[in-house]
Amino acid sequence: VELIMNLEKIENPSFLKEMKISDLKLLSKEIRQFLIESLSKTGGHLASNLGVVELTIALHYVFQSPKDKIFFDVGHQAYVHKILTGRAKDFPTLRQYKGLSGFQKRYESVHDVWEAGHSSTSLSGALGMAIARDLSHEDYEIVPVIGDGALINGMALEALNQIGSEQRKMIIIFNDNNMSISKNVGALSYGFSRLRSGQTYTSLKMNMKNLLTTNRFGTTMYHGLKAIKDKVKDSVIDQGIFDEFDMQYLGPVDGHNLKDLIRILNVAKEHDGPVVVHVITQKGKGYAPCEKDIDGKWHGVGPFNVLTGKSLHTTPEGYISWSLHMARAIDYLSNQNEKIVTLTPAMINGSALQEVFKHHPERSFDCGIAEEHTCTLAAGLAISGYRPYVSIYSSFLQRAYDQINHDICRMDLPVVFGVDRAGLVGQDGDTHHGVFDITILKSLPNIIISQPKDATEAQRLLTTAFQQNHPFVIRFPRGNVKVNSSFDNQTFPIGKWEIINQVSNPKAYILSYGPDLDTIMEKVQSNHLPIRVVNCRFIKPFDKELLTEILKENLPVFVYETDMKDSNLGTSILSYQNEIQTHSPIFRFGIDDVYVEHGQIGQLRKENHIDITDLFDKVIEIIGE
Amino acid sequence: VELIMNLEKIENPSFLKEMKISDLKLLSKEIRQFLIESLSKTGGHLASNLGVVELTIALHYVFQSPKDKIFFDVGHQAYVHKILTGRAKDFPTLRQYKGLSGFQKRYESVHDVWEAGHSSTSLSGALGMAIARDLSHEDYEIVPVIGDGALINGMALEALNQIGSEQRKMIIIFNDNNMSISKNVGALSYGFSRLRSGQTYTSLKMNMKNLLTTNRFGTTMYHGLKAIKDKVKDSVIDQGIFDEFDMQYLGPVDGHNLKDLIRILNVAKEHDGPVVVHVITQKGKGYAPCEKDIDGKWHGVGPFNVLTGKSLHTTPEGYISWSLHMARAIDYLSNQNEKIVTLTPAMINGSALQEVFKHHPERSFDCGIAEEHTCTLAAGLAISGYRPYVSIYSSFLQRAYDQINHDICRMDLPVVFGVDRAGLVGQDGDTHHGVFDITILKSLPNIIISQPKDATEAQRLLTTAFQQNHPFVIRFPRGNVKVNSSFDNQTFPIGKWEIINQVSNPKAYILSYGPDLDTIMEKVQSNHLPIRVVNCRFIKPFDKELLTEILKENLPVFVYETDMKDSNLGTSILSYQNEIQTHSPIFRFGIDDVYVEHGQIGQLRKENHIDITDLFDKVIEIIGE
Repeated sequence: VELIMNLEKIENPSFLKEMKISDLKLLSKEIRQFLIESLSKTGGHLASNLGVVELTIALHYVFQSPKDKIFFDVGHQAYVHKILTGRAKDFPTLRQYKGLSGFQKRYESVHDVWEAGHSSTSLSGALGMAIARDLSHEDYEIVPVIGDGALINGMALEALNQIGSEQRKMIIIFNDNNMSISKNVGALSYGFSRLRSGQTYTSLKMNMKNLLTTNRFGTTMYHGLKAIKDKVKDSVIDQGIFDEFDMQYLGPVDGHNLKDLIRILNVAKEHDGPVVVHVITQKGKGYAPCEKDIDGKWHGVGPFNVLTGKSLHTTPEGYISWSLHMARAIDYLSNQNEKIVTLTPAMINGSALQEVFKHHPERSFDCGIAEEHTCTLAAGLAISGYRPYVSIYSSFLQRAYDQINHDICRMDLPVVFGVDRAGLVGQDGDTHHGVFDITILKSLPNIIISQPKDATEAQRLLTTAFQQNHPFVIRFPRGNVKVNSSFDNQTFPIGKWEIINQVSNPKAYILSYGPDLDTIMEKVQSNHLPIRVVNCRFIKPFDKELLTEILKENLPVFVYETDMKDSNLGTSILSYQNEIQTHSPIFRFGIDDVYVEHGQIGQLRKENHIDITDLFDKVIEIIGE
Repeated sequence: VELIMNLEKIENPSFLKEMKISDLKLLSKEIRQFLIESLSKTGGHLASNLGVVELTIALHYVFQSPKDKIFFDVGHQAYVHKILTGRAKDFPTLRQYKGLSGFQKRYESVHDVWEAGHSSTSLSGALGMAIARDLSHEDYEIVPVIGDGALINGMALEALNQIGSEQRKMIIIFNDNNMSISKNVGALSYGFSRLRSGQTYTSLKMNMKNLLTTNRFGTTMYHGLKAIKDKVKDSVIDQGIFDEFDMQYLGPVDGHNLKDLIRILNVAKEHDGPVVVHVITQKGKGYAPCEKDIDGKWHGVGPFNVLTGKSLHTTPEGYISWSLHMARAIDYLSNQNEKIVTLTPAMINGSALQEVFKHHPERSFDCGIAEEHTCTLAAGLAISGYRPYVSIYSSFLQRAYDQINHDICRMDLPVVFGVDRAGLVGQDGDTHHGVFDITILKSLPNIIISQPKDATEAQRLLTTAFQQNHPFVIRFPRGNVKVNSSFDNQTFPIGKWEIINQVSNPKAYILSYGPDLDTIMEKVQSNHLPIRVVNCRFIKPFDKELLTEILKENLPVFVYETDMKDSNLGTSILSYQNEIQTHSPIFRFGIDDVYVEHGQIGQLRKENHIDITDLFDKVIEIIGE
């Protein structure tokens, strides 16, 4: 690649204004090269960023950030934006503790005006900004960039509905790569395909090619064209769903053609109300291994070999991801129970459900980025005698809180939730940590909440879940789990805990759940600590019988949890102790009242005083060994 | 009204099949009369039910419930359905404790296949049922009835997206009265208007009028028509947004013309995939006071005088609704602070915001039934220097949990929430009780949660909220509040509690918040109880200083709350007591792990052991006075 500049020297995007199109092309090559090289070392969201190199350059070429507000719906698409706004030098720290965030962050730059890790918030945010601008009688552009996957989410559609009726000036960049994270789904995507192959912009371009040479003349021309277009649009020009939302539609335009992009963005600026610019991009553009990916494997990646595209990350021998293990378990159970139906909101790849979808195509549904609908769809299945399994990330489950409450728990329907990425997730940071699910679900009547400590427990909890008739949550973390046995059909008694080690004359109890239990046991045994460790695999209902026995011993009880401290198992235990009026000293671990930043999980645990060493420091302090 | 039958003798809807159209017309008159008479005594959702009399009769005439699944999106439109399925005799108990529910309830009847109090869940539920039916190779119709207001909600649109791609047989009744609860909003409603005035069904009807005489011939005819329609639809027949979702559209049809309704429903049955039947109804049809209502005052009513339409419910002298009081306070503050912007998800009337909208039209927004978008719109305004006030029912706030978490609290934006209908709401029952908001919001970093005990506190808390820079919740109950002073600009120190009565040598403390405090104080004073009562007007952050003092006295502490017991102020106090290692006996009140049914609030409190008499019974038991 011919280097046109030192990307690390960029301070702000104003340098772009002076560049010729040919130079911008060189710049886009250089940025692509930089992204591939840099992310091959740190990992990150490569494919989506390779797709928006020219688009981001064109946006910063045409608009004046930070006066104009350019922002990306899901902030992980903002890498090029970060480079153009002076943060290339920070890329070696990408997604690391105290390093560059993988998302837009307002604290990082004045050019980051919005933050989001969850999809489809940008249009609502944009309307808020537009109303604020108009109320203040200010004059600047608001330019949210939203993908086709994000656009079918309910809240984006709700926003379009009001944007259409408010008719405030706003340029919505519809970044259409026909992928969200993986292949797109739903009826609207057919409409997008139809638009994609439409001729609207092509003909518009033909007309304007020679005419848009001066700004003044271009403006006149644009308004003339628009008037004609308005008259004929219903019969001649297909504007797809955007017409239904009363929005001007421009496009489609090749998202890798800088000249066309700049031209169409300049046309869009002339429009007074909301306008959608339909930009066709290719996810992974310019890097062969990414371009070929249709499953979304290159959506978020760890370090990789640039030449081969092979991941440098190796899963330890005998381990697989928790997601894959759960997927295999549901696949296994689906073979036995023809009533099981698997649902995912656009996370086939993230939750490793490919084989489930392949083996049970009639009973597997990708609902798109539509968490609310996914959960109520499950309610509809459950009410009809089927046994839905909703595979969903903890953080995204937050979107469906009301559906889980009003539609599932209130009707006491047997929906099973595989809550993936529960707990701290590491590098994606505050928007993605799955630390609220226990907190919000625990107070719902009828629900059962569990977390397995290992692969066997996971599979048995899943078997248990399908043999009872209430909403049932099985949460499991990001990362790997050791697999060493074949599946069986054993179940657990619901709400029962288990003392793992029957130490006689214990001096304390440690209560916990999930994979930390094994580490805790190792520590207890290797240090010969007189402590009983309890596997609280059911967070709700908890084991009142065993808990009563424990509390009556009046020994120190350590409740080790790593999600939000407010309203977790520990608070259930405190409430119960208050109810039965015992007085054991109870020591609780959990995340204090803060949003946890990004970084390695281990580091984050240390910084938030929820590391296992924190537990044992406290244990030693109290029992004095 | 000429009586055609005794409605109370109806056992199931099969009798309809034998009736002539002329008899069905008489029946619809009789049902209307019954509804007006009956609801004039009990109150209930009158207007929406008067609007669907003919539609419901036609549905039960054409389809075979319970084999075919007929259900209403928001169950309060199911009164006619209840009458036709054998529940007329129970209407005197409507919405009363252990009486007929105001919504569809599966426990009430096999004809109630779905339950919902929150809007827009029916389409997701319907798709679940359709998948289940197809997987079981069964053959029946699935007929959700959804209103135009509910259809613009995000989760309904998410459902349409998947229904369109799944193409399973389903008849969606689009009940279009151009009102949701009050006047409809948003760009899509323009499209609905356009369709409403369209000629599609009229011409279809002309063609079919004489042809659809025999079923067999009708079928052939229909498929012929459909084939033509498919070919020309893009250019000739406007199918509105339904075309974008790849759905067949039939209509519009007059929702009060039984003959046309029955005919179009029979046509719809012939279609293999999803079909939308667009039915134009008039809310309140047949009762003049209702028909004239455009503000939604007749949406849900108390007992009224049939002749005059006047409410029999009188607000006590000197009292107004909490909603109106908060609305007046925001109106007052909006005059002083031009940055305040008021948002409501379709609850202008319910939250008494009419005057706010009238006085501040530029700064008031009805976002439609779109709670998620509403909250993130607020985030966009806040990020741009404005001070959004989101007026939202506690129960509907559940829909926006993730937006409050991810978009507002995570970015620590100063959005003020007026959480209306907090606590038990009474007759609407389990779907509407606002008893989860503290539970789910309390664990969010940065948020402030408060509840005023009276009108003055309410207004001062609101003033406080706009003078600080964090997310700020002010919750207030359904019902009335005494107003006796003009507004002032005083504020409260955030997180500070107040001992209301400085009894010397107290034997116990009662901690509570909200309007119950006055009743508690009366009881304490009239019985000369040696108890200090603490106004915990801030639920989060709580007053650690005062709480520490109280807990150090080792006296019994009664925490009186009436929302979910799991994760409320009481658990915060238990956690804090555990942290500072004091040992006061703490007695907590709150709703146990159940969904509370419908009935008068007082009755529900008694049944759930959270009545003030329950508090004082316990107090007397413990302190032994």
